Amino acid sequence: MTKITKAACIGGGVIGGAWAARFILGGIDVAMFDPHPEAERIVGEVMANAERAYGMLTMAPLPPKGKLTFVKSIEEAVQGADWIQESVPERVDLKRSVITQIDAAADPKALIGSSTSGIMPTELQRDMKHPERMFVAHPYNPVYLLPLAELVGGEKTSKATLDDAKAKLAPIGMKGVIINKEIEAFVGDRLLEAVWREGLWLIKDDICDTETLDDVIRYSFGMRWAQMGMFETYRIAGGEAGMRHFLAQFGPCLSWPWTKLMDVVDLDDELVDKIAGQSDAQSGARGIRDLERIRDENLVGIMHALKSGDGGKGWGAGKLLADFEQGLWANAEKPKTDLGQAQPIRILETKVNAAWVDYNGHMTEHRYLQVFGDTSDGLLRLIGVDLDYVKNGHSYYTVETHIRNLGEAKLGDALYSTCQILSHDEKRLHIFSTIYNADSNAPVATAEQMLLHVDSKASKAVPALPEVIAKVTAIAEAHASLPAPEGVGRAVGQKR
Amino acid sequence: MTKITKAACIGGGVIGGAWAARFILGGIDVAMFDPHPEAERIVGEVMANAERAYGMLTMAPLPPKGKLTFVKSIEEAVQGADWIQESVPERVDLKRSVITQIDAAADPKALIGSSTSGIMPTELQRDMKHPERMFVAHPYNPVYLLPLAELVGGEKTSKATLDDAKAKLAPIGMKGVIINKEIEAFVGDRLLEAVWREGLWLIKDDICDTETLDDVIRYSFGMRWAQMGMFETYRIAGGEAGMRHFLAQFGPCLSWPWTKLMDVVDLDDELVDKIAGQSDAQSGARGIRDLERIRDENLVGIMHALKSGDGGKGWGAGKLLADFEQGLWANAEKPKTDLGQAQPIRILETKVNAAWVDYNGHMTEHRYLQVFGDTSDGLLRLIGVDLDYVKNGHSYYTVETHIRNLGEAKLGDALYSTCQILSHDEKRLHIFSTIYNADSNAPVATAEQMLLHVDSKASKAVPALPEVIAKVTAIAEAHASLPAPEGVGRAVGQKR
Repeated sequence: MTKITKAACIGGGVIGGAWAARFILGGIDVAMFDPHPEAERIVGEVMANAERAYGMLTMAPLPPKGKLTFVKSIEEAVQGADWIQESVPERVDLKRSVITQIDAAADPKALIGSSTSGIMPTELQRDMKHPERMFVAHPYNPVYLLPLAELVGGEKTSKATLDDAKAKLAPIGMKGVIINKEIEAFVGDRLLEAVWREGLWLIKDDICDTETLDDVIRYSFGMRWAQMGMFETYRIAGGEAGMRHFLAQFGPCLSWPWTKLMDVVDLDDELVDKIAGQSDAQSGARGIRDLERIRDENLVGIMHALKSGDGGKGWGAGKLLADFEQGLWANAEKPKTDLGQAQPIRILETKVNAAWVDYNGHMTEHRYLQVFGDTSDGLLRLIGVDLDYVKNGHSYYTVETHIRNLGEAKLGDALYSTCQILSHDEKRLHIFSTIYNADSNAPVATAEQMLLHVDSKASKAVPALPEVIAKVTAIAEAHASLPAPEGVGRAVGQKR
Repeated sequence: MTKITKAACIGGGVIGGAWAARFILGGIDVAMFDPHPEAERIVGEVMANAERAYGMLTMAPLPPKGKLTFVKSIEEAVQGADWIQESVPERVDLKRSVITQIDAAADPKALIGSSTSGIMPTELQRDMKHPERMFVAHPYNPVYLLPLAELVGGEKTSKATLDDAKAKLAPIGMKGVIINKEIEAFVGDRLLEAVWREGLWLIKDDICDTETLDDVIRYSFGMRWAQMGMFETYRIAGGEAGMRHFLAQFGPCLSWPWTKLMDVVDLDDELVDKIAGQSDAQSGARGIRDLERIRDENLVGIMHALKSGDGGKGWGAGKLLADFEQGLWANAEKPKTDLGQAQPIRILETKVNAAWVDYNGHMTEHRYLQVFGDTSDGLLRLIGVDLDYVKNGHSYYTVETHIRNLGEAKLGDALYSTCQILSHDEKRLHIFSTIYNADSNAPVATAEQMLLHVDSKASKAVPALPEVIAKVTAIAEAHASLPAPEGVGRAVGQKR
């Protein structure tokens, strides 16, 4: 994969800060320039949100974090950077002058993306010496979780630049979508603007209040659009007869009387007061930080759900997440524990996320086994049982598990897991895993498991391949001197 | 809760059929009238989809299914019905005449809802004798999964009717949202129409193709809108300064040049061909049934994710699902197994859904424990440990679990579980659960578990309350004559 080696962020704030978070969590150093006196505080808050969200989003091993440096000028920021992201306030003259300044100081081959949500790139690249490498990379809030960046070129942007930008976004978990032609507001904001305009009329005319309008969205087409867009959804609505049938049926509605509402609403003080008041009634009981937390947890939950979509293959943003994780595992450093040492191997680090807890905020019973399952998967990768091995028809299946719940894990708790090999032969792998609270180092749960090596097509136990057995043996020999963990060999309810 | 006792569906098809499915799965008898020669086939297909989706959506005990009867006339259909849902084709004259006919034949107190997606209820109720009980109940496809119904009254509709309709939708898992004033297309379709109009321009002008447009939606604001609507999302975007700040920042965009696209696009043959072609390129590799399956599985996954939202309390459609299930449990019939009999108690029935499987289509390791956890929860409810008991500060915690994986559960497999009490004292409950394949009756996995009765605030073991112990004892005595299940008392890897 094409990777960014160093990034520069010109403009912090909520958008620029989240870009920086994406880069840093992707292992890329970032130089940030923002003259705002509070820039460091704002970026720090966004970084904290992003780290919390990533802790919930994936158990795959993130690379060592990139380094964030605040610098004193654009010129200093862009030195050595091969991706420069401009996120200054939304004024053409300001953005153009900043981009022209970036252009003059940066390596002529460095990509320059603008976070503008509406200004055409041709306007922005007008005064550049090397305009072919400048484009719009328009993200969506929260930028650290929503993967989309609309990639829009101006008159002077090269096709290669857009392709390169798209390729460079994938390793940091983002989905670059290339827009054919530039127009103001591109694609996403056009659609949002249309809904917004219509929504303002509905509030102004007292058809409904803001809460009702939001409920109409989130209990219906919002859930459709989280996974398929408008056209694919309507294709289904057309039934076997398909899109053409749908268009024949629905098309004529366009000239129905309700299109009169296309006039632009006057957003006068009265309407502003009304919306602000209704919004307070709807959401005022919760602070913004609380709403942000709920939003982020829900986004993580939705992406996890979509990751299991299409029979486990992943769908939409969930497929993207699965691919991202695949890349993380492939690029993972060897575990910090030396595999030849006489100590259990440290495998996973994660946080208890909202989708894992019951109404008391305690981690649900089966999520312990999820962490243990991911732990044994982690061990398997270390002995060469990776996706390719599995695709070639061999795998280890868990046949027996004994779990002891020793403590409670609560929402937000940081956890880590370790794994020890108790014994093995050519078909069997007997392991003992422990989940610890990362703050207290107290064990929260243990699992003793028997795994069986199988030919997955024939569904029968067969010996593991020699190279796997060699790796298992090396670890097992190192673990042979370890004492048997407390609780091994125990049946349920057995007296101690 | 106010419940519907008998429903009539006038008009089958995808919408009417899905209404029928909602009623029937909610335990309500339905009389269906539809003169279409293929009505029974179409409704049967929708019912099958709905049953499959419900099997994945909830493990709570659905009531015994209502009975579906196809009848020969509107008059016959509405006899004894207290909710009549009209879902005939979208023509004012046809709908009005059908509704007038329903009105004449039905109990004057029966509610009459129309599924129209755009016609004003005042138009439809014009010729009725009892128009005060007529309203629009506009659902969203797939009606059996998306919970929203927009409730819209006409000039003659009483406020009590809308309140009653809203109350009657809750027990069948739907969210009735009352719209203040009638307008053509109500609220949801107004918003959709605005996006559709804008989208058509974007395709016509070659700004992007249908796949790109869909990607822009589903990788960004689609996931926001599945959980919060537009106003609550923008409130967050306004930051601590809130909605007023957001309006000040974003409002002026309304008069930016891109509003020129509000003209109505001419959906001529050329544009229809273009959209149909792009849609084929985007989605044509999959059939409609395949896309429906993926959509439904994703919707179930998203609702499950939202059910864990807000720290386990549930959010949006997930909170609605949790409330729905709470009602199902409260109204559940006693288990078919006589608790006094010497046989394991049959507890759950479920299907392996898409969110539960890995890329091979096999149920993931930890989902077995999820089913076992729901099984022990089911047993606990039978001995009086329900939500109230837990809210009062007592509960049973699982402290030890031994799972044996004996077979494989695959996507779509029907499963059921049983539970047997092995032993108990005032604090401890030692149980053995088995998951069976419902078709072969072969055991797929077993779990031996030790549960401890706790004071959940003090986090320490305390004796269960006497009424719970009495119920446990009664079941345990009946189970005392059962042989010890194969595998009890076994440690991992122990020779047989």
